[in-house]
Amino acid sequence: MEAVSDGAFRATISDRWNALGDRPNGGYLLAVALQALARVLPFPDPLTVAAFYLRPTAPGPIEIRTEVARVGRRVATGEARLVQGGIETVRAVATFTTLDAAAGRTLLLAERPDLPPPESTIDLVGGRSLPGISIVDRFEYRVPALPGWVRGQPTGDPRVQLWLRFRDGREPDALSLPLIVDALFPAVMELGEPGSSTLELSVHVRARPAPGWLACRVLTRHVIGGYHEEDFEVWDSRGTLVAQSRQLALLPSA
Amino acid sequence: MEAVSDGAFRATISDRWNALGDRPNGGYLLAVALQALARVLPFPDPLTVAAFYLRPTAPGPIEIRTEVARVGRRVATGEARLVQGGIETVRAVATFTTLDAAAGRTLLLAERPDLPPPESTIDLVGGRSLPGISIVDRFEYRVPALPGWVRGQPTGDPRVQLWLRFRDGREPDALSLPLIVDALFPAVMELGEPGSSTLELSVHVRARPAPGWLACRVLTRHVIGGYHEEDFEVWDSRGTLVAQSRQLALLPSA
Repeated sequence: MEAVSDGAFRATISDRWNALGDRPNGGYLLAVALQALARVLPFPDPLTVAAFYLRPTAPGPIEIRTEVARVGRRVATGEARLVQGGIETVRAVATFTTLDAAAGRTLLLAERPDLPPPESTIDLVGGRSLPGISIVDRFEYRVPALPGWVRGQPTGDPRVQLWLRFRDGREPDALSLPLIVDALFPAVMELGEPGSSTLELSVHVRARPAPGWLACRVLTRHVIGGYHEEDFEVWDSRGTLVAQSRQLALLPSA
Repeated sequence: MEAVSDGAFRATISDRWNALGDRPNGGYLLAVALQALARVLPFPDPLTVAAFYLRPTAPGPIEIRTEVARVGRRVATGEARLVQGGIETVRAVATFTTLDAAAGRTLLLAERPDLPPPESTIDLVGGRSLPGISIVDRFEYRVPALPGWVRGQPTGDPRVQLWLRFRDGREPDALSLPLIVDALFPAVMELGEPGSSTLELSVHVRARPAPGWLACRVLTRHVIGGYHEEDFEVWDSRGTLVAQSRQLALLPSA
């Protein structure tokens, strides 16, 4: 990423993070927007982020236009727009902070995902490449059992628990969590749907992740008129919730 | 609300929707922003909304500056900024649609709140006015049992289920739901906290509500370093989920 002028940056959207349909994954595009915001805001960690996917983005050159909305004592908010060929494709607003400086009360009233140890689980992708879905080469996904839709038999239950880590050995950090919450197949594939398009993605980054496997829980509970939410939780190897997201997406059949 | 120029409006922030601390409620401020966006976007209903609370807003005159990001065939996205005395206090991005036109699949995998009939429940406020909290005069809140914190004995369980409706007999509509999801006391008051400040509020409006009582479910599951999420669901009298929200808030002690 190269600074061009006054809060504007140039970058290249890689084709190494493509999701279904040969399109760059939405979480990856958000990560690019957040990398630009991290350059213009005085705090290192995203805390709460909302991204609106306006139009398709293609691999290739992109401009990221940032604007600082407010800088406070412990949080700062900015906006980033991805612009390709003069057209805005993604708009993101984010509040950053220094997560390690959060010294208030901690109380976890929910359980981390209940998963067998990673070595007792199945590699979802198994090192195979999936045509047009290059993002699966970036991660290792380990599941207790293969999803029904993989076997051509969707279970009707759009809930998934899995272990996840970067395949190249890179450890997760706070800036990678908004990418990770969008890195799995849509849970609605267990409802027999071939995929889903994200309209909006909100992420709360709750703590810097410890090194190691991330335990994830994904679920959809309400499909209404073709729109559905997908909730995603990421827990780190210490057993701390490190990110929580919700997206609104539209089924291809709608 | 009065149009001033090119997507800009003037309005007055009323003191009739104040929350704790004599400050206008965040959901009310979001509703003002959405009313302006409804004037510049070609669809009537908010679908997905994210609001960032940058600075305190005071009752009195306000300017709302809107900008259209994209108008599509069935959704349109815009941004609204509340500006008071030249200073931006709230930034909201929202995608609008025509909810009644959503014709895709519907599948509800979760249950509506399990509440006794409204007439068998307790009026939380009981028609009393609470000093500085004028918003409670706008709604009727009916709970199966009084919250522990009201009796000075917080239960330690930050989950609330309740019936809610406008006190003046007005029926809920899609534009009022982003206000309603922020209209209750913070669930963390059951953890002994005196309140909480919203940093960001995301709302998905899932359907136009039918007339009548709204059944609501509110909960906080993770308090980390003083930050916590609050999830809010609103179900209408037909038993349909009509709105789902999540906010990130900060405890006053943090």
